[in-house]
Amino acid sequence: MCRVAVLGAGYMGSAITFPLADNGTDIHLWGTWLDDDILEASQRGEHPKLKKKLPEKVSLFYSQQLEEAVKEVDFILIAVSSEGFLPVFQKLLETLQTEQPLFTLTKGFVEYDGRIMRIHDAAFDLFKKKFPHENFIWTSVGGPVKAIELSNKVPTGTVFGINSPRIQELLRYFKAEYYRVAVTDDIAGVELSSAFKNVYAIALGICDGLYGTMKGRLFHNFKALLFNQAIQEMAIIIEAAGGRRATVFDLAGLGDLYVTSSSGRNRRFGEYIGKYMRAEEAYDLMLREGEIAEGYKTMGLGGEFLKGFGDNLLEKLPLFRTLDRILFLDKDVSVEMEGFFRRYILR
Amino acid sequence: MCRVAVLGAGYMGSAITFPLADNGTDIHLWGTWLDDDILEASQRGEHPKLKKKLPEKVSLFYSQQLEEAVKEVDFILIAVSSEGFLPVFQKLLETLQTEQPLFTLTKGFVEYDGRIMRIHDAAFDLFKKKFPHENFIWTSVGGPVKAIELSNKVPTGTVFGINSPRIQELLRYFKAEYYRVAVTDDIAGVELSSAFKNVYAIALGICDGLYGTMKGRLFHNFKALLFNQAIQEMAIIIEAAGGRRATVFDLAGLGDLYVTSSSGRNRRFGEYIGKYMRAEEAYDLMLREGEIAEGYKTMGLGGEFLKGFGDNLLEKLPLFRTLDRILFLDKDVSVEMEGFFRRYILR
Repeated sequence: MCRVAVLGAGYMGSAITFPLADNGTDIHLWGTWLDDDILEASQRGEHPKLKKKLPEKVSLFYSQQLEEAVKEVDFILIAVSSEGFLPVFQKLLETLQTEQPLFTLTKGFVEYDGRIMRIHDAAFDLFKKKFPHENFIWTSVGGPVKAIELSNKVPTGTVFGINSPRIQELLRYFKAEYYRVAVTDDIAGVELSSAFKNVYAIALGICDGLYGTMKGRLFHNFKALLFNQAIQEMAIIIEAAGGRRATVFDLAGLGDLYVTSSSGRNRRFGEYIGKYMRAEEAYDLMLREGEIAEGYKTMGLGGEFLKGFGDNLLEKLPLFRTLDRILFLDKDVSVEMEGFFRRYILR
Repeated sequence: MCRVAVLGAGYMGSAITFPLADNGTDIHLWGTWLDDDILEASQRGEHPKLKKKLPEKVSLFYSQQLEEAVKEVDFILIAVSSEGFLPVFQKLLETLQTEQPLFTLTKGFVEYDGRIMRIHDAAFDLFKKKFPHENFIWTSVGGPVKAIELSNKVPTGTVFGINSPRIQELLRYFKAEYYRVAVTDDIAGVELSSAFKNVYAIALGICDGLYGTMKGRLFHNFKALLFNQAIQEMAIIIEAAGGRRATVFDLAGLGDLYVTSSSGRNRRFGEYIGKYMRAEEAYDLMLREGEIAEGYKTMGLGGEFLKGFGDNLLEKLPLFRTLDRILFLDKDVSVEMEGFFRRYILR
């Protein structure tokens, strides 16, 4: 009998319970202090984000029940927002008695020890402070997975960036007829692709917002060019940060950016920006609907993260810098997007 | 004063006249024997495909006027369909007196000398038969360019695969404020990316047709997976055929597949297939509307082309083989697409 704890009852944490349940695991789905409404609604009937009942093998745990939720489980998945990651991980470490395979579906960066860090690196450091002699067994989950489609059992492919053969043994609890799991040891590549695709999906959303409403004038050529530029910049970033380009040119990068730019919250956030809404306003508007445009926060922290690799790196990322000026310096979105094309593409 | 001949008055041949005209060239737009209606309509007012007037610097030439059209021009663009390429190129060679920079926007394969060949290779052979001691100056044009958007002057990026520094000097006649030209010496990579993206766009259209109409069930996860698989297979093909993987992972490959799968004739052809129309029926339906789904023909010839590299190559291309069974063996589209996922992706 396999027992699993999933921390975070939002889209992805709840969706991953479907393949886990189909593989016969008992799932403890723990909600953060922000998830009370979700748990209550799920208890009464449907999960309010996924619009369906959760599998029967899911038991719900409220935020004060973390210790119970992770007691005697075989592995733990963390699927909170990037802002929630550190507080949840620290609470988790307090209750852990020993090493435990950890999976994270959280995408983005954290501020830790006075620096902006990858989630993996912060988690590693915290873990080793408590368990200096135990194994940090870690998986970063990436790839093109819209949570609601996973819960609909649409054919889906994912990539697990893993650091231990022990994870290999656990894959059978994930793999399902509709859920393919590819494996790589390039954790940095998977994690950073997942994070930055949310940033670049904003650029594609901006293209939709800015040009999509001009009657009779489609901008697919420009959007394809932005898509391609996004992938090239992600490859530069990931290579600089110790990952592999090949990871970007595959499911974790181009597959995930493709799905994120077809639908999803970050694309929609970008669409608002393209329609001349200020970034903070758009973020707050979505937040009031219970939707977090993570790419916006990732963009801010990601910019700091990239500075750690020297100014030289940012110079190679004109689309990233264009987004930065639009989102954080409130520059005119149309002027910036056209300037980006003229200055950096039209050479 | 620069004078240019464009052969083929369909979408792309007509659209490319816009940046050429903006750079002050005089353009001789020659229509094939299939383009009479287009020329007549364009003469009276609007180009019927692009739905707008052609630039003033464009003069129209009917099929019997090829010699006039190419007389004393500085370079020649060929933008006929792949089926029209050989007859047009042979006619062109009859009128040519000497070497001449040649650009082709035609995508696909030709049957030449008893074999299925890349257009470049057939053209090279024909050229050298007539001009054994002259230079074959050649450009294959690729990248994410919807013709109608180019004629709307939407920001657009293209890739020229070139084999001579003389082409570099001519780029100024193409580059415009809305038209970026990247250059590579990987002609095979550009040409084969252009051809095979039309094939794989059919797979993405099939996904739309098969699943897009199921109410409330989106299949973006699956479509992203197909998109990624298409790019991986294109990289395998192009590497086997002497091109570079990097060309596929850039504008010519992923950029072009992105735009082709957002809109375009091959995606639409695939959508019909996904709705259980037989391939030939769908092709004929579109043909009656004056639209050619080139990917269908490219698929047939491309399959033969790939066999030239041994059976081993086709084994590495499960999505290509799946398409082959659907389009040419009339296998059930739903069974095949799901079988593809189960057998090749879900491993």
